[in-house]
Amino acid sequence: MSLIVQKFGGSSVADAESIKRVARRVISYRQAGHDVAVVVSAMGDTTDDLIELAKRVAIDPPGREMDMLLTAGERMSMALLAMAINDRGYEARSFTGSQAGLITTEDHGRATIVDVTPGRIRAALDEGVIAVVAGFQGVSQHSKDITTLGRGGSDTTAVALAAALGADVCEIYTDVDGVFTADPRIVPTARRLPRISPDEMLEMASSGAKILHLRSVEYARRYKVPLHVRSSFSLNRGTVIAGSVAHPFPVTPTELWSPDEADSDCGGQADNPTTKTDAEERDMADMAKSATTGTGKNLEAPLIAGVAHDRSQAKVTVFGVPDVPGTAAAVFEQVSAAGANIDMIVQNVSVAGSGKTDISFTLPRAEVKSTVLALEAGRSRLGYADLATDTHIGKLSVVGAGMKSHPGVSARLFKALSEAGINIDMISTSEIRISVVTRAELLDDAVRAVHSAFGLDSSTGEAIVYGGTGR
Amino acid sequence: MSLIVQKFGGSSVADAESIKRVARRVISYRQAGHDVAVVVSAMGDTTDDLIELAKRVAIDPPGREMDMLLTAGERMSMALLAMAINDRGYEARSFTGSQAGLITTEDHGRATIVDVTPGRIRAALDEGVIAVVAGFQGVSQHSKDITTLGRGGSDTTAVALAAALGADVCEIYTDVDGVFTADPRIVPTARRLPRISPDEMLEMASSGAKILHLRSVEYARRYKVPLHVRSSFSLNRGTVIAGSVAHPFPVTPTELWSPDEADSDCGGQADNPTTKTDAEERDMADMAKSATTGTGKNLEAPLIAGVAHDRSQAKVTVFGVPDVPGTAAAVFEQVSAAGANIDMIVQNVSVAGSGKTDISFTLPRAEVKSTVLALEAGRSRLGYADLATDTHIGKLSVVGAGMKSHPGVSARLFKALSEAGINIDMISTSEIRISVVTRAELLDDAVRAVHSAFGLDSSTGEAIVYGGTGR
Repeated sequence: MSLIVQKFGGSSVADAESIKRVARRVISYRQAGHDVAVVVSAMGDTTDDLIELAKRVAIDPPGREMDMLLTAGERMSMALLAMAINDRGYEARSFTGSQAGLITTEDHGRATIVDVTPGRIRAALDEGVIAVVAGFQGVSQHSKDITTLGRGGSDTTAVALAAALGADVCEIYTDVDGVFTADPRIVPTARRLPRISPDEMLEMASSGAKILHLRSVEYARRYKVPLHVRSSFSLNRGTVIAGSVAHPFPVTPTELWSPDEADSDCGGQADNPTTKTDAEERDMADMAKSATTGTGKNLEAPLIAGVAHDRSQAKVTVFGVPDVPGTAAAVFEQVSAAGANIDMIVQNVSVAGSGKTDISFTLPRAEVKSTVLALEAGRSRLGYADLATDTHIGKLSVVGAGMKSHPGVSARLFKALSEAGINIDMISTSEIRISVVTRAELLDDAVRAVHSAFGLDSSTGEAIVYGGTGR
Repeated sequence: MSLIVQKFGGSSVADAESIKRVARRVISYRQAGHDVAVVVSAMGDTTDDLIELAKRVAIDPPGREMDMLLTAGERMSMALLAMAINDRGYEARSFTGSQAGLITTEDHGRATIVDVTPGRIRAALDEGVIAVVAGFQGVSQHSKDITTLGRGGSDTTAVALAAALGADVCEIYTDVDGVFTADPRIVPTARRLPRISPDEMLEMASSGAKILHLRSVEYARRYKVPLHVRSSFSLNRGTVIAGSVAHPFPVTPTELWSPDEADSDCGGQADNPTTKTDAEERDMADMAKSATTGTGKNLEAPLIAGVAHDRSQAKVTVFGVPDVPGTAAAVFEQVSAAGANIDMIVQNVSVAGSGKTDISFTLPRAEVKSTVLALEAGRSRLGYADLATDTHIGKLSVVGAGMKSHPGVSARLFKALSEAGINIDMISTSEIRISVVTRAELLDDAVRAVHSAFGLDSSTGEAIVYGGTGR
């Protein structure tokens, strides 16, 4: 028997039928003997509708009241899910973020978790009750006001609750089948990764893969919570995000694969079928191997886990910066004071004798305007010659723990891009990631070329939909 | 400066425009220097929509989850109202029933208030902040679960909060102009009562007048909270419900009449106009008189405050009951075990020598079926001869503290009905009320005849709409 935390996003609880489907899935885990705590987002468009209502009564609603309003969303979805579970003969009880012990900072709309005290959830689980918890929300530590966690909030609630309860796994249900080697909309031969390390997932998330918010992955890595990202619309196994040695996959596949009733509506099922599809059998083989080798990679052992891409960035170049100590620091102080989130930075070698250099950096496109204004305001002090912006760039990243011990990765990457006729504009690396900036219009070609060059293409393309997650 | 609790029902906060209108009215009181706590119901049809959603996911949703779901309704309206107030430059803060200290029993869906600890509301008011409180909801004393108060809940929240805060007045805003001498849809010449005593209001409410729920009136009488029932769609003065000597009207009329901006939308107003309509001047004269005489009646000094009617009841007659001690008790034990709420009871004089009598009683029409079944089940034990039901009855009640000292009331009532050709079927009385049962189809004529006979008709009929209140 394991303790499992499951998180269902807004699209998984969009209407009454979806809620009933989620109820069946949750119950199938209880039937298999597990303790289950479920974290839910607001139904479908509820949050957007509430924001629209707020706009109609106030130009600039106070954060405290906005949070009070928006938290009505999860209140509805969690109560309805608890009802649907009870309706099928299993006891479920819903809890607000406050009742679940999600203690946060006072920052309305973007609170961070300072403590989790899930006494009521633990008590419910000990009684054999399925706990249904509101995602995205908490209560502030000092003023005891209702707060929301901002982007990625519901995933973070689930991970934080799993950490505090010592759950064996935190399942994140979404509308795609897991983490893929590349975006299947661009690379039809992309494959689902049966497993990826937390470090790799962090690099994937920060490199543009939208399936999990960076924040929840960071939380999971920090508190060693094994994640399982999978689709709420299928019985397929998804992607396990866990350290392969220190945190072996905690629930046996047979248990986790306990299927629910899919789309039939004929009441609870008595048995726990163990029939597996071919794909599932393959996954099991992969899992068995990675448990042995401790690398989490499959038979072909590619150097990299996946290829991520990001179209949301822009490049700013500052020309003719005095090449003396402290100048670069002054530029970035100015930029960060404007609130910009700098990603890649490249400083050219100074032209001999000129005493001047150029500095380029990338940042989210939405932050270009304020950043340029800030730089222009500091122009006389910074002493640069000119500014240029480029909003037609694309970033490609290869991510993989394997590259630590394989020096040939960057060479293979550059060769693949070169053979595809794609120029590289900027380069940055971490221990397990190499990112390059290209022209935006060449990004798709670049992703396909690199995916293929690293042997990631599957022989048969799976029919899958790849999209972002909700809040 | 006074402390005023205001309650706005669902129709007063049905949409963004209505919420903004309520915000303006609340602000006008703050501008006049008062401390204001506002209790709101859920917006318009929200509660019905949520109940509909619940029905789609579960046949018999648990009360705990139903309460969790429904309380999302006030959460939205209170946050939106707080936003709308803040948007106009006045600080407002919303509080759930739990945050406001509404401590209740564990009875989901029909909890009763066991304590009110409004520490956070008091603190907000002391800071000069307008407190916006969710009506209808609370938190259970022991299990700390969210509860709802059932029918009349929002009015009761307002009255309970006013009592706990020691408010000077509790204003109940609704969609009619106050309490009338009779239902104006039946009696076009009915007049708004400027004042009525709590005892009279209780009798009116229990006799079918739907403007205030019996429960909130009982609470107000018990804790001596002066009520002011008035329309949120006009600036008119409504009806004050307060003991005339022990609880003089606590806020001067000039203050209370501080009008809001009505339907203009041009921002806050600087002044506190004191212009009154003729009707308001008349009310003031009435109020001044009642303060002097201590009777709460106007110049014409009618014996009764108003004529209430009720079409929702039915009559059950049990024929041939053995006329021996304990038989009537046995009949009503059987009936109350079936959950029936008996109103009037009439037992005929036993026919000489027969040893048998007939017992008739009235009860809500919805309870007839279960009551008859219960009586039939106990027939052999009770030993009665036959049963009959009549669902075409109407009840008319005249209510007035004046009848205590005026013996001629029942005579005048019976004479008026007789002159109108209306037979009386049953009669029951309390110290300040006389109720009669007539044929349903004659009820309207009866109400008009009695209203006129007691001198309640106004010379000019006001154009008013009379309807029920929400939860």
